Amino acid sequence: MIIIMRHGASKEQIRKVLDFIKLKNRQPHMSKGETHTVIGAVGEACIDPREFELLEGVKEVIKVSSSYKLASRVFQQEDSVVEVNGEKFGANNIGLIAGPCTIESEEQIFACAKEMSESNVKIIRGGAFKPRTSPYSFQGLGLEGLKLIRAAADKYNLAITSEVMEISQIPMFLDYVDILQVGARNMQNFNLLKELSKINKPVILKRGLSATINEWLMAAEYILAGGNRQVILCERGIRTFEVATRNTLDLCAIPVIKKLSHLPIIVDPSHGTGLRDKVVPMSLASTAAGCDGLIIEVHNNPECALCDGAQSLYPEQFRQLYKQLKQLAPVVNKTIR
Amino acid sequence: MIIIMRHGASKEQIRKVLDFIKLKNRQPHMSKGETHTVIGAVGEACIDPREFELLEGVKEVIKVSSSYKLASRVFQQEDSVVEVNGEKFGANNIGLIAGPCTIESEEQIFACAKEMSESNVKIIRGGAFKPRTSPYSFQGLGLEGLKLIRAAADKYNLAITSEVMEISQIPMFLDYVDILQVGARNMQNFNLLKELSKINKPVILKRGLSATINEWLMAAEYILAGGNRQVILCERGIRTFEVATRNTLDLCAIPVIKKLSHLPIIVDPSHGTGLRDKVVPMSLASTAAGCDGLIIEVHNNPECALCDGAQSLYPEQFRQLYKQLKQLAPVVNKTIR
Amino acid sequence: MIIIMRHGASKEQIRKVLDFIKLKNRQPHMSKGETHTVIGAVGEACIDPREFELLEGVKEVIKVSSSYKLASRVFQQEDSVVEVNGEKFGANNIGLIAGPCTIESEEQIFACAKEMSESNVKIIRGGAFKPRTSPYSFQGLGLEGLKLIRAAADKYNLAITSEVMEISQIPMFLDYVDILQVGARNMQNFNLLKELSKINKPVILKRGLSATINEWLMAAEYILAGGNRQVILCERGIRTFEVATRNTLDLCAIPVIKKLSHLPIIVDPSHGTGLRDKVVPMSLASTAAGCDGLIIEVHNNPECALCDGAQSLYPEQFRQLYKQLKQLAPVVNKTIR
Amino acid sequence: MIIIMRHGASKEQIRKVLDFIKLKNRQPHMSKGETHTVIGAVGEACIDPREFELLEGVKEVIKVSSSYKLASRVFQQEDSVVEVNGEKFGANNIGLIAGPCTIESEEQIFACAKEMSESNVKIIRGGAFKPRTSPYSFQGLGLEGLKLIRAAADKYNLAITSEVMEISQIPMFLDYVDILQVGARNMQNFNLLKELSKINKPVILKRGLSATINEWLMAAEYILAGGNRQVILCERGIRTFEVATRNTLDLCAIPVIKKLSHLPIIVDPSHGTGLRDKVVPMSLASTAAGCDGLIIEVHNNPECALCDGAQSLYPEQFRQLYKQLKQLAPVVNKTIR
Repeated sequence: MIIIMRHGASKEQIRKVLDFIKLKNRQPHMSKGETHTVIGAVGEACIDPREFELLEGVKEVIKVSSSYKLASRVFQQEDSVVEVNGEKFGANNIGLIAGPCTIESEEQIFACAKEMSESNVKIIRGGAFKPRTSPYSFQGLGLEGLKLIRAAADKYNLAITSEVMEISQIPMFLDYVDILQVGARNMQNFNLLKELSKINKPVILKRGLSATINEWLMAAEYILAGGNRQVILCERGIRTFEVATRNTLDLCAIPVIKKLSHLPIIVDPSHGTGLRDKVVPMSLASTAAGCDGLIIEVHNNPECALCDGAQSLYPEQFRQLYKQLKQLAPVVNKTIR
Repeated sequence: MIIIMRHGASKEQIRKVLDFIKLKNRQPHMSKGETHTVIGAVGEACIDPREFELLEGVKEVIKVSSSYKLASRVFQQEDSVVEVNGEKFGANNIGLIAGPCTIESEEQIFACAKEMSESNVKIIRGGAFKPRTSPYSFQGLGLEGLKLIRAAADKYNLAITSEVMEISQIPMFLDYVDILQVGARNMQNFNLLKELSKINKPVILKRGLSATINEWLMAAEYILAGGNRQVILCERGIRTFEVATRNTLDLCAIPVIKKLSHLPIIVDPSHGTGLRDKVVPMSLASTAAGCDGLIIEVHNNPECALCDGAQSLYPEQFRQLYKQLKQLAPVVNKTIR
Repeated sequence: MIIIMRHGASKEQIRKVLDFIKLKNRQPHMSKGETHTVIGAVGEACIDPREFELLEGVKEVIKVSSSYKLASRVFQQEDSVVEVNGEKFGANNIGLIAGPCTIESEEQIFACAKEMSESNVKIIRGGAFKPRTSPYSFQGLGLEGLKLIRAAADKYNLAITSEVMEISQIPMFLDYVDILQVGARNMQNFNLLKELSKINKPVILKRGLSATINEWLMAAEYILAGGNRQVILCERGIRTFEVATRNTLDLCAIPVIKKLSHLPIIVDPSHGTGLRDKVVPMSLASTAAGCDGLIIEVHNNPECALCDGAQSLYPEQFRQLYKQLKQLAPVVNKTIR
Repeated sequence: MIIIMRHGASKEQIRKVLDFIKLKNRQPHMSKGETHTVIGAVGEACIDPREFELLEGVKEVIKVSSSYKLASRVFQQEDSVVEVNGEKFGANNIGLIAGPCTIESEEQIFACAKEMSESNVKIIRGGAFKPRTSPYSFQGLGLEGLKLIRAAADKYNLAITSEVMEISQIPMFLDYVDILQVGARNMQNFNLLKELSKINKPVILKRGLSATINEWLMAAEYILAGGNRQVILCERGIRTFEVATRNTLDLCAIPVIKKLSHLPIIVDPSHGTGLRDKVVPMSLASTAAGCDGLIIEVHNNPECALCDGAQSLYPEQFRQLYKQLKQLAPVVNKTIR
């Protein structure tokens, strides 16, 4: 922590700051400049920078950003690679996940799985438990949905990712699902993260609607700290004042994350934009920005989808996009299987 | 849902929109203006407005905001009043809750409870399970903390509010705590809300950092829909670009909520500002704006608080504030016990 | 500027940072902690902190926030007071400004001026040049409007505030207007600010929709630096994700500004909320939070106002509010004339 | 405008709404659904939707978004193309602009112009008048700067773009500059826009820090409405809560704009990110998203730049980026000269 004293702060005021640092079991380091005295407070003991702002003569207090360790590129220089069913996320690999927003019926999920399989997809997505703003909206098929998607995936040789909403669902998910997904609203559900740190399957951690990149990496740290090193970050748009799109996709988060962390980062352009005709350009843009994968909503019959049909691609659109992505990837030294 | 066609949209384009509405099991109502044709889609069936944005000739699609019912003032005209230990929230009553951020030790919580009791407070706050951005920060005393605060509260005749973070903790909270609090990060933890809808104790529902007022009322609807009508809303600041304060306290949410809903709304100026010297003016401002209560952090020794000491009032400051609030309340036709 | 080196940064990396600081004509100060080396760069020469972020081994670079000087409470301890027509803003005085959004006609502005005069108001507001989002909206009466409001104000013994949009309008405003107002969209129109720094009349500087408090004070510094010390800051809401109100009124800006600066700060609850029934509670809340004044839209016939009628109070509502404000002010040690 | 009545609104309440619409010189159209009555108000007369929100029985009022006309794709189906010095922006052309943030000296601007010319650039950028947050920061070389960049550009056969800050500067800019740029802070400086609508040179209109896409197009409408059809929109990042980057580059604005408008849209990844190592990935991403051009800061000696050196590319980096962009463009059916 760094405390910058006001221009003209008195000796007495400086002394009180130094004393307070010691009271808090930290070592003070003072540095006198021409206009300002700057005091560093070094050590393990946790202190709240705001306490110093309240002292007389203090101009500004700056906290060195809270440290994720295991998620940091300082801790691990090389890119982490997560591999599921032959699909790789990280390093120079771009992995693809595609499928419907929600598992709706046996017929629908088998039709989607067939389409995905024929489109060279190796991992299907599909929600069984849906976080809905309204208690009166469709809440998903639950366990029944997981059984259906498992059967469909097995038939077509696919792995599965699906959103887990709550600790008690984890055992069920371990039985049916290959990658557990944490939704944006649960990014700081720390108890859930702690439980997911103990499992032996990859976790996709979506960025919260109003989470800073630092908070996002701290949330990943919860999973890593418990021993699960298979974490995939997923940018899915943040909440801003702009209303033309559902969310504002923050693609610059990709190079920012790649610099700070070794973890793979994928993008969800479907939730990130909320509109089908924006999904293709944003998928291409994400890839050009250096992402390690994409998770895209595709539905065999979007007009009749129970949920988020408007942001789902038609299978034919997805296949066309796939071709463009394969052309694009080598320009940024990436590979798509 | 309202669909506004572009100026000059063709008959064919309009027909397709009407057909699509019928396909979705809704009744279309068309209204031709001088410049635009406007089509309403009425009925119970849920449809996604974005699907219409993708049709040719459509200028704009407007969703009638998703409806909370039980939380609405249309459903219940009179203000709901929640009463705990003689303290009332709602109608013309302003209820006060005060106490430390965190339960730290037997000595600390008894000292705080004594101070609160001597300050005429009837409900003490104190966290036993703490949601922390970093996995390496102090996570609270847990069950041990709940036992300590219960003992202290019993000695001084206080009721207790404390934050519940997870479904499995609910039975434990029902044993020790009088008001269960849902933190900002859990505002859309729908599974937790559903479980809290079944209990027989009041729930304080904090507003999420990036939650709109509409989403907040929808979250309250989850609790109400399950049968628990004792819901208190708590404004605690939203996340904006401004960095001078920890959050931006949205005090206009008070009159907005009072118009839309019958539920009591209280304010947490401690988390809302993050700085002790802002707590007093924001408590006064909240009261002047018409809030139904305040939840304020007070610590017997803020400099040594384990958490958020910088936003905790000294007991003496709190007593002074109490006096000002009592003077202020009658100006806006409110009463403080 | 403070540079924090990564844990484990090499001597070579540290040396390069020190060299770079010297290249930029600043003095480096190094401080080695247990985990991190911290380097300060002191001096007048302006450097861009981001240049250091790009060096190897650098964890984080922190800029000491750019310094306003004349606006700072360090420069002047006592509150500045601006007085116009017997109405005072600052110290323990709350000044009131009221009137219509726009000057519409001779009849309207004389009717409004009469109402204001009978309501004990000393300063009337009214726009002659209107910044409108659309080029097709009513743009104000211009010079004709200024002449009308001057005549009406003279008849009823009122001073005038009105928004100046552009440098070439300043001489005209100096002829007709007593307080020149800079709108939110022009807060960082630096050329306009520089010209206003040379005039001898007070300036109300509205906060930009997305301006931080620091940027706002820096904008005030432009006016102060040129020699005009009569600056009144005006909080009028910031842009956030919330759509229930036109803007989010940031009332905590009041105590924040009062701590950082000696300048008076007033609040515009009319633009800040956009709805008449929110103006009264937000006026009361602003006063309780310690503001130095209010600027409120009042219209003799809001239903027929050409602009913003929905956020204008009826004269009777304003008189009622005035009474409440007079009761409230003493609770926070303030006076309303 | 659309007025949605509450469930159970009385006939009397509905009648009052209809009357109010007529009072405002609009035609009401009523449509009774099963749960809600919906009333449209059609016509030219301008009314404020908020006035209706204040009427009894009204649930919600929805404004059809304010209409830009000339900027709309409905007005003009084909993409507008702006051509300067052989460089084209729009349709399937991606135009490039590059150069230093600021004109610093004769030596610097000639060195930069030479580098640009050797990198196949046809349009150089460079600021002569700089909008600076602090009045104490370097404010640019002014007219002297414009003369220097003109001489350098002439020597190397380049066109020039530079930011105009104020109406009185326009004649000077017309003498020296080929494309006039409106900065983000001036996007809603409507008087400036009106004057620029009368000139015969292209205008780059940067998006305001907190401007919605709708407001941005309305600002463009000001320029178009006066007769200047050579408008280029420029996305340069919006202000959000995220602090890891200077701004949040909203790349989804590209497909949104392409759908709503025929105007070309370019991206400024230098200001949009604020960091050199983010400029390359964001340039590639912008191109993949379908932008019509890029404006990139390149400096012959970034470490010694007077302003924003940290976000300027080295000439060698720029040439490498150029190669990547040429490979990437065909994937999205675009051409770079």
